[in-house]
Amino acid sequence: MEVEIKFRADESVEDRIRSVAEFICEKVEEDVYFNSQVRDFRESDEALRVRRDEEEVRLTYKGPKVDPETKTREEMEVVVNDYRKALEILSRLGFRVIRKVVKRRRIYRYGEVTICFDDVEGLGKFVEIEVNSDDVDSAKRKVFEVAELLGLDPSNSIRESYLEMLMRDTSTSEA
Amino acid sequence: MEVEIKFRADESVEDRIRSVAEFICEKVEEDVYFNSQVRDFRESDEALRVRRDEEEVRLTYKGPKVDPETKTREEMEVVVNDYRKALEILSRLGFRVIRKVVKRRRIYRYGEVTICFDDVEGLGKFVEIEVNSDDVDSAKRKVFEVAELLGLDPSNSIRESYLEMLMRDTSTSEA
Repeated sequence: MEVEIKFRADESVEDRIRSVAEFICEKVEEDVYFNSQVRDFRESDEALRVRRDEEEVRLTYKGPKVDPETKTREEMEVVVNDYRKALEILSRLGFRVIRKVVKRRRIYRYGEVTICFDDVEGLGKFVEIEVNSDDVDSAKRKVFEVAELLGLDPSNSIRESYLEMLMRDTSTSEA
Repeated sequence: MEVEIKFRADESVEDRIRSVAEFICEKVEEDVYFNSQVRDFRESDEALRVRRDEEEVRLTYKGPKVDPETKTREEMEVVVNDYRKALEILSRLGFRVIRKVVKRRRIYRYGEVTICFDDVEGLGKFVEIEVNSDDVDSAKRKVFEVAELLGLDPSNSIRESYLEMLMRDTSTSEA
């Protein structure tokens, strides 16, 4: 399970992250999200994604969110050796591209907790605090502890994915 | 494009292969074939497969056969880093396992032509003669030349996949 909370953030939040956590790396992540013809993933709250960064390409399935306070959901992922072919195979299998999400991500580590400071094209800056664990309760405690350490108020956390936020903005601007 | 012809074969065919072609390797390939809920791949003549051998795992999409004389069809493939997760992701995306096909394959090379001597569980021994190329006409000439070199009669070639042969046998024995 991917146990995660997310907040809007500014540079001062990243200063606090830097003061407590270990910097791991910075990368640009280019995500292509797909929808299914079998069921609408916007309604079923699932996600199918091909992610490319400077190092590798990953194919990821995410199940529906299972927790009212966090973005916690099941995540399954494989590394694949070819970005174009992965997109093409999904297209041939009947999946349709919803849209691309691009962000610059700086990754920090605090014990078992991964902290991502994200600058998302079209959305702005966010922090994601995440633990991958099947012990959801313990993982939730850890991510909320880190949020508190960073001065973030859990009541301001955002359960929407970047994709959902971008799609909402698109539909609003079209309306 | 995967341009391919296939024949039933016995040990004498492999002796002839050995006398003209270079032996590359022997491996056991374990293939899991999936069907789609969007369209029945048995009717659309497509295939979705996860293949595992001793070295790696590959996810493969095959389009419908496009040539009356051969098994020629479009093939797209990525290497993935985890067999179980690949199966699980496809299952979550709504694909259903049709069946597993297991074979011991000895691979030989003759110029650009790949010759596979296969012993398929439940079906017996076959030879597949294959060229991967977008120039289908030239590739067809090459695979037919190798068939002739091996003393195989093109009129005996088999267009059915191992999966189709196994499914036919199953439905016959159930009838």
